[in-house]
Amino acid sequence: MPSRFELANAIRALSMDAVQKAKSGHPGAPMGMADIAEVLWNDYLKHDPSDPKWPDRDRFVLSNGHGSMLLYSLLHLTGYDLELEQLRNFRQLHSKTAGHPEFGYAPGIETTTGPLGQGLANAVGMAVAEKTLAAQFNRPGHTIVDHHTYCFAGDGCMMEGISHEVSSLAGTLGLGKLTVFYDDNGISIDGEVEGWFTDDTAKRFEAYGWHVVPNVDGHNPEEIKAAIELARSHDEKPSLIICKTVIGFGAPNKQGKEECHGAPLGDEEVAAARKQLDWPHAPFHIPEPVYQGWDARERGKSQQDDWQARFARYRDEHPELAKEFSRRTQCKLPAEITSEAFIEKMQEKGETIATRKASLLCLNELGPQLPELLGGSADLAPSNLTFWSGAKSISRENPSGNYLHYGVREFGMGAIMNGIVLHGGFIPYGATFLIFMEYMRNSVRMAALMGKRAIYVFTHDSIGLGEDGPTHQPIEQLTNLRSTPNLCTWRPCDAVETAAAWDAAIKRNSGPTALVLSRQNLPHQQRSKQQLAEIQRGAYVLKDSEGTPELILIATGSEVALAMDAAAELEGQGHAIRVVSMPSAYRFDGQDAEYREKVLPRSVTQRIAIEAGHADYWYKYVGLDGRVVGMKTYGESAPAGDLFKHFGFTVENVVNQAKELLG
Amino acid sequence: MPSRFELANAIRALSMDAVQKAKSGHPGAPMGMADIAEVLWNDYLKHDPSDPKWPDRDRFVLSNGHGSMLLYSLLHLTGYDLELEQLRNFRQLHSKTAGHPEFGYAPGIETTTGPLGQGLANAVGMAVAEKTLAAQFNRPGHTIVDHHTYCFAGDGCMMEGISHEVSSLAGTLGLGKLTVFYDDNGISIDGEVEGWFTDDTAKRFEAYGWHVVPNVDGHNPEEIKAAIELARSHDEKPSLIICKTVIGFGAPNKQGKEECHGAPLGDEEVAAARKQLDWPHAPFHIPEPVYQGWDARERGKSQQDDWQARFARYRDEHPELAKEFSRRTQCKLPAEITSEAFIEKMQEKGETIATRKASLLCLNELGPQLPELLGGSADLAPSNLTFWSGAKSISRENPSGNYLHYGVREFGMGAIMNGIVLHGGFIPYGATFLIFMEYMRNSVRMAALMGKRAIYVFTHDSIGLGEDGPTHQPIEQLTNLRSTPNLCTWRPCDAVETAAAWDAAIKRNSGPTALVLSRQNLPHQQRSKQQLAEIQRGAYVLKDSEGTPELILIATGSEVALAMDAAAELEGQGHAIRVVSMPSAYRFDGQDAEYREKVLPRSVTQRIAIEAGHADYWYKYVGLDGRVVGMKTYGESAPAGDLFKHFGFTVENVVNQAKELLG
Repeated sequence: MPSRFELANAIRALSMDAVQKAKSGHPGAPMGMADIAEVLWNDYLKHDPSDPKWPDRDRFVLSNGHGSMLLYSLLHLTGYDLELEQLRNFRQLHSKTAGHPEFGYAPGIETTTGPLGQGLANAVGMAVAEKTLAAQFNRPGHTIVDHHTYCFAGDGCMMEGISHEVSSLAGTLGLGKLTVFYDDNGISIDGEVEGWFTDDTAKRFEAYGWHVVPNVDGHNPEEIKAAIELARSHDEKPSLIICKTVIGFGAPNKQGKEECHGAPLGDEEVAAARKQLDWPHAPFHIPEPVYQGWDARERGKSQQDDWQARFARYRDEHPELAKEFSRRTQCKLPAEITSEAFIEKMQEKGETIATRKASLLCLNELGPQLPELLGGSADLAPSNLTFWSGAKSISRENPSGNYLHYGVREFGMGAIMNGIVLHGGFIPYGATFLIFMEYMRNSVRMAALMGKRAIYVFTHDSIGLGEDGPTHQPIEQLTNLRSTPNLCTWRPCDAVETAAAWDAAIKRNSGPTALVLSRQNLPHQQRSKQQLAEIQRGAYVLKDSEGTPELILIATGSEVALAMDAAAELEGQGHAIRVVSMPSAYRFDGQDAEYREKVLPRSVTQRIAIEAGHADYWYKYVGLDGRVVGMKTYGESAPAGDLFKHFGFTVENVVNQAKELLG
Repeated sequence: MPSRFELANAIRALSMDAVQKAKSGHPGAPMGMADIAEVLWNDYLKHDPSDPKWPDRDRFVLSNGHGSMLLYSLLHLTGYDLELEQLRNFRQLHSKTAGHPEFGYAPGIETTTGPLGQGLANAVGMAVAEKTLAAQFNRPGHTIVDHHTYCFAGDGCMMEGISHEVSSLAGTLGLGKLTVFYDDNGISIDGEVEGWFTDDTAKRFEAYGWHVVPNVDGHNPEEIKAAIELARSHDEKPSLIICKTVIGFGAPNKQGKEECHGAPLGDEEVAAARKQLDWPHAPFHIPEPVYQGWDARERGKSQQDDWQARFARYRDEHPELAKEFSRRTQCKLPAEITSEAFIEKMQEKGETIATRKASLLCLNELGPQLPELLGGSADLAPSNLTFWSGAKSISRENPSGNYLHYGVREFGMGAIMNGIVLHGGFIPYGATFLIFMEYMRNSVRMAALMGKRAIYVFTHDSIGLGEDGPTHQPIEQLTNLRSTPNLCTWRPCDAVETAAAWDAAIKRNSGPTALVLSRQNLPHQQRSKQQLAEIQRGAYVLKDSEGTPELILIATGSEVALAMDAAAELEGQGHAIRVVSMPSAYRFDGQDAEYREKVLPRSVTQRIAIEAGHADYWYKYVGLDGRVVGMKTYGESAPAGDLFKHFGFTVENVVNQAKELLG
């Protein structure tokens, strides 16, 4: 049986060899954290390499994602379907071993990491999901949800603001099964961190209500083991294990220095490290006994077998719950949800309400049907209207609810939502003002990149927000959302389109959806059955002219009513005007060419787009011959009505622009 | 002489009356913090209401900017040019009293606040600027820079991640003249914060190396005074004074509750508060003795007179330094800077280098001429190439340098840069990878909204970043920057355009500039004298056809060379092709119609834009008849060359697209 040191050195060797072969990458973190990983994965981690989706596995998150070779080494060595060839192809096109761990590329990658701090936040989200799922499904004598979340994090993660947001909330929620290993190696890219990072991190986390194990020698397996035991014994508080490590451990001339952080060690230093570590094997060669020492398949199978037996007993006693558990952890929606009928009902009711209010009505309709909805807001529930009639707050003592008060922590919210959806069993939705999407921006991008179903409720979507002024009025944010690949954005014009948007958001399982909603009331629009169905196509003719239109008005959200009024005025003056409502450009762009041509015929070049957001986006649809009634500057502080007038969102202005175009 | 309580009540009355009149606003914070403000402003704050720009004034930042009426009341009462009529017009169009304090709207507003946490970060930036400016200009026997920075912050600021980033750095830098008052009222919008915010904030800030005064009764002037004295006696550490307050203090039925946070109290409760506070005066009426008690003009004048006398002595002894101090604090550039000659030299040298490398050469050229440059990077100096040959790190012990190691704190960096530029005396530049602009995004927007000269060095600007993969490869970020009002973005194609971009950034004093730079080498482009001059116009014809072009290729940055190669190939096949380099769409859009028509004639509708960023943006320039060779998806992890090929950035693809267009 190989020694622990030898097992850990397999990680070191694979990491330095792969980085060397790719001529690019980060050997320092894997070599520094290899001993910690060895103890955790070999002695504690509950996982089944043959079934990476087993719902009750422990979750492992590498928040310092640049150390991706650590994770790839672990997955390869313990028996996941990740062959040596993939490690040889580290960082190459079409390989499963990207520069940073990419969710979906290789089995066992629980989340995409790299943007620092977010992995830690994902881990918090996973721990929330575990605790809440356990509270919802475990029954006396039946513990079917009972796993840990482990996270590796580096100095960068600890410096990032998001680490504060999520660690603070984790402390409040008492996430006792979360254990974070802080790789305290004293080095970041600019050099020795003491010049810019002098926190007493132990004290900081104690202030959050965490259990802290300080000063662990990260190269001493016994100390690591003792620390993990301590962490596991504290089940009321999350644990932080502060490991003193040497970055690039084993590279005799570069260890402990920034040099080994983000560049290949070089052939000479790799050779020297082989000597230093007493690892005489050729690059990418792992001796069979080392493989055997790592292989987790048998243990994993037996762990899962045990769970399956327990789950079978659970199913016997609680068949409905067991069915529901399977449904939810497989991310399947209930067989029937009533949202289509609800959309029709909304159309019949014809209410003039704010779309944020309509969103609340949708939640009241969908919520009882979807126990997997796990809502929340970054301390704006009364404004975002996300706390629906069946919402129940999740707290340390009562984790079984369906609503998280995230506090004023937008970025933390977004990345925790990612952790929740990655864990499985939930559809998270989270809310803030559209402008503060910016605070959480990169977490929205990560959901889109990973293709996960997170739903954002972004209210107060324009200058219509009014008196709070330019800092709170979104201008360029809609463009930002719409330019994000795989993010589906909706800006509905009334309660009906809002219901359609919620329906689409729930049913979209290939990526996140942003619902962009008004603060102010928006008038109801009349629709035929066909128009009602066409909302799902992202854009449709809401009002057509007799015969070929001379001019098309394209609008979204609060500006659709304005377009309708302007069209009426222009028609009164004898013009043939079409109005296209485009609640979701993402959906519209996904339609076939025929439908797109039907809605926006190429022959009609006289077009005006109207939106109280940044104008530039709309040239995509109006072209060089069209015009945009949009925003080019920041807003102002005033009642909404005054602002719409001030910035030209008036029938008069639209009509004038149209008449100029029509000559 | 009115009592302290009566003086504080003037703030409470003005705040509740103004919010009531506007039917919108936040009375809770001003009423809760009135007593603290009264002690600070009347007993400590060094300021001259008649000269709000006096360089040695104390800085006051209201980070919980929704409490704007607190600041407006203070400015009005102490004698700034902010008349009662403005307070009556709170939150109305064209008033100086916007919903949140807007820099430039009323004298005495040191920064725009409202997006939570950023005011605190601005205050840290101001304190950095003070300490560094003092180190650079004070001389034995001459202390001309010596002022405090005071900041009010609420629970929201404390929950936001940015509070961690900047407080950690403030502790490391030992910003002893920074004092933060934490309005610990236990209430946020979702209700009592104990459900989502249970930090031991005193302990947390001690962990950052701050001096903390806990448990101060925020309604007891003696306790507040004692706390400020303690804070001022600690000049090696920033101070946090934790004030226990009652939100909405004085409103008998609503105080201490969320109800009074963000909505008018209502006429009845306002009347009841008048009774409770023993404030019998009519709305907006301040009795003359109360005005006299607040009036700071005489004290301010005498404080400034004293300083002016000291500055006169300084000028006698250090005339050159005094001149330089005046120049820098007035934000004037030196009479001559050599950047134009440098641009020409770059053109002559014709180097093929990465534009991030060219940026370093620019810094090496400009740095010695511009001692006001205060650089930094969020822990990516060796990658961003921002630590130029004359860069000197700023540390706790040696604050006189010109370079801040911000650590892995992008958002903190952006908002600290805003504080530095608002303080005056510096031109801050800060760097990170373009993708991590997202972490700091809202601080970039705030610089643009305030119209302040901050310079962002965003390197690794596309899939050209290579192996680090999709999490690190910007796609939609260029669109995001370009859609931001008053932000000037440059993406130069070679060393020459980089030099022009730096020149423009330095000379632009009406807003921030983003320099978007490549990781990889970019070939040098030949230019005539006229072309060289036209770079400043944002777009210019880099290569023209003989006669009218059949097709225009528009490109930026790393794709300009590709456009040139494709044009050569197409010309070889007998086509007339123009190539337009567009390093700055912002600048180009600001040119007169004639120039724009000259570069992009409307008659030429066959256009292809080429940029390794999100495609949609470019329809603004190519219209419905044109095409875009751009990105629609996320990138991949692979060497840059493989990626450009994979995503169609090849001569072959551009030529094929062109030929399809040309029929």
